[in-house]
Amino acid sequence: MKRVATLPQSRIHALHCAQCQTSYSPFELQSVSPCCQQPLVADYDMSWPLTPGAGINLADSSMWRYGALLPLLDEANKVTLGEGLTPLLTLPRLAARYDLHALLLKDEGQNPTGSFKARGLSMAISKAKELGVSGCIIPTAGNAGVAMAAYCARGGLSATVVMPRHTPEAFKEECYWYGAQVELVDGLINDCAARVRQLNAGGELLDISTLKEPYRLEGKKTMGYEIAEQLNWQLPDVLLYPAGGGTGLIGIWKAFREMKALGWLAPEAALPRMVAVQAENCCPLLETYLGHQPNCHNYTGRPTLANGLAVPRPLGEPLMLEVLRESNGTVVAISEEGMLEGMRELGQQEGLFVAPEGAAVWMAARKLLAEGWLHADERILLLNTGNGQKYMSNVAGRAWA
Amino acid sequence: MKRVATLPQSRIHALHCAQCQTSYSPFELQSVSPCCQQPLVADYDMSWPLTPGAGINLADSSMWRYGALLPLLDEANKVTLGEGLTPLLTLPRLAARYDLHALLLKDEGQNPTGSFKARGLSMAISKAKELGVSGCIIPTAGNAGVAMAAYCARGGLSATVVMPRHTPEAFKEECYWYGAQVELVDGLINDCAARVRQLNAGGELLDISTLKEPYRLEGKKTMGYEIAEQLNWQLPDVLLYPAGGGTGLIGIWKAFREMKALGWLAPEAALPRMVAVQAENCCPLLETYLGHQPNCHNYTGRPTLANGLAVPRPLGEPLMLEVLRESNGTVVAISEEGMLEGMRELGQQEGLFVAPEGAAVWMAARKLLAEGWLHADERILLLNTGNGQKYMSNVAGRAWA
Repeated sequence: MKRVATLPQSRIHALHCAQCQTSYSPFELQSVSPCCQQPLVADYDMSWPLTPGAGINLADSSMWRYGALLPLLDEANKVTLGEGLTPLLTLPRLAARYDLHALLLKDEGQNPTGSFKARGLSMAISKAKELGVSGCIIPTAGNAGVAMAAYCARGGLSATVVMPRHTPEAFKEECYWYGAQVELVDGLINDCAARVRQLNAGGELLDISTLKEPYRLEGKKTMGYEIAEQLNWQLPDVLLYPAGGGTGLIGIWKAFREMKALGWLAPEAALPRMVAVQAENCCPLLETYLGHQPNCHNYTGRPTLANGLAVPRPLGEPLMLEVLRESNGTVVAISEEGMLEGMRELGQQEGLFVAPEGAAVWMAARKLLAEGWLHADERILLLNTGNGQKYMSNVAGRAWA
Repeated sequence: MKRVATLPQSRIHALHCAQCQTSYSPFELQSVSPCCQQPLVADYDMSWPLTPGAGINLADSSMWRYGALLPLLDEANKVTLGEGLTPLLTLPRLAARYDLHALLLKDEGQNPTGSFKARGLSMAISKAKELGVSGCIIPTAGNAGVAMAAYCARGGLSATVVMPRHTPEAFKEECYWYGAQVELVDGLINDCAARVRQLNAGGELLDISTLKEPYRLEGKKTMGYEIAEQLNWQLPDVLLYPAGGGTGLIGIWKAFREMKALGWLAPEAALPRMVAVQAENCCPLLETYLGHQPNCHNYTGRPTLANGLAVPRPLGEPLMLEVLRESNGTVVAISEEGMLEGMRELGQQEGLFVAPEGAAVWMAARKLLAEGWLHADERILLLNTGNGQKYMSNVAGRAWA
């Protein structure tokens, strides 16, 4: 059958070590950098012009419309469920309530498997398929594992998902329906990562841990391209993002920088101030940012309603701190009760049943407005990473204060 | 703030009674037809040309891209969460397994509130707002109530949702988060309808029951426009659809006929054979179709895993039968165990966690292939109406046979 959309030729030409910049091949299977054991980051050839008109396939209503700036070489390897091009909504009733000039929300809950993780996993599993991998393994706080299980099933790869035992049943069950192996661990995602190393000591499976392979980041960055395209290349003043592992924050910023290099954004236009939002129960980045610890290597977190924020020792911490520094951003942590309040307000005022992570982002905006860091006349963009349904067992019975 | 997309001028010019064709104004609040107490159907002015290029706003990645053929007059009244333009996926692994030429699935689970109901309710609540309504009420098997609660919250209208007590908690809870009033009834959706009449005896609220107001159908029909556009105006040979209340089936067929009238489909091209899929536990349309009863007026159904198919006495039965007759279609009923088998197969083979309704549709295709009604060389389109998450309490623990 005729394909509806075809993939433009990828401009990928290298991977580099995020720490020492050493170059590696994007045409071979890679994990972290052999030199520094740090994330590998994809580079594209920007030496010849690419206009939005030539670089974006408007007939493709998914993240794959930006194929020239994605790493997949052969469309036959694309493993897709239609991820991306999620709605960018105005929030007129909340804006009126708080007297804000422009309040926007990008709703990633409308992705396949109900979260933003679909983007990274579609990309990573597509590349895994392209590079001949037959099975994948992942430690996860929930959503990433569900997405990996789905895309592995779709691509015909085996899937092993390692998640905390306290993760809501809905996440585990969805993995079962995709035919994945599910392993439960007492602890948080870092404990799951240890179990992954044990289970995969022989290296038979590709480890899809956050930033341990280079391509989930490339999927995530498409959020940045979409935000720019949907706002007609006029970025917001401030972007608030729930940061657990941090690939979304890092990926969106990477997209903004690539679009600057491509000339898709005006050279003189400022990029948004980036705000990383965490849970009070698990806020390693905030602690490092405030100078309370040199880094997150020994941080101990507690579980939170926002399962995706229960990441005590993110490998991407240095890259997240770089984004905050370069963008004049900041970090905010939200309480459990605050997340529930945010969910109620978004539900009742705007008809959005968001993940607790997304509610935390709205509450962070309120906090920064109250503190004067954010101004009512700025264009504010909230990123909701998932829909609330999978979190039902965390929040059932709490719809009223 | 600048709007990203604007609405083209609507060509709506009348409503007509589905039974006797009497004309009514589309500029006043309407319920069923005063003449026959039957559904009112919207008509558009087709007397002057409209090309796809002029009729579709490509910059709008939602169902509102077809605004010229929708009934909303003023964009200021649009109540949207980004519904529509859902992915149309090929199912290559299932096609290979069953030796099929072309197997497609439109995934309506990626809509706001996780189901196809978002389309109809976005449209109905927008029109309610345009016509000055301040509160709405609905009897529902689940998904429509959730969607109504969300769009009412988004539009600032009050919402009263009446659903069977046995509906999974996830549906009720989501309504609570939107601030809706929820009323539980012992019985099926027809019992809920009786309770709605009782609660709304004074007529203070707009009754949003299936086909009791003219505009949910207009939202649903956008599925038909999208299928045509996404397939480059070459419709499939057969389209399988889960029919409870039937608005989707009726709406898609309406869209096909409108596109014929507009010249968007080749005049000589055959329209798809339409298959209505029901649950063995509740299959009023099948019973009437087989001549076992004159109509569904006294049919008694039982609950099913596919909550959306537990509609024993659909008001739209005559319109559904008309679609089946005009399209040379048929009706199929699927068992509860069959739905679970379909969910497993779509999950494990294609990475799709579908609603039991969507699984029933796939099982209906298998049944019709086995019977020779469907042929392996035909282009087959399955419509999945929702994602599986809200049905979790129906299906938990059943991922393996």
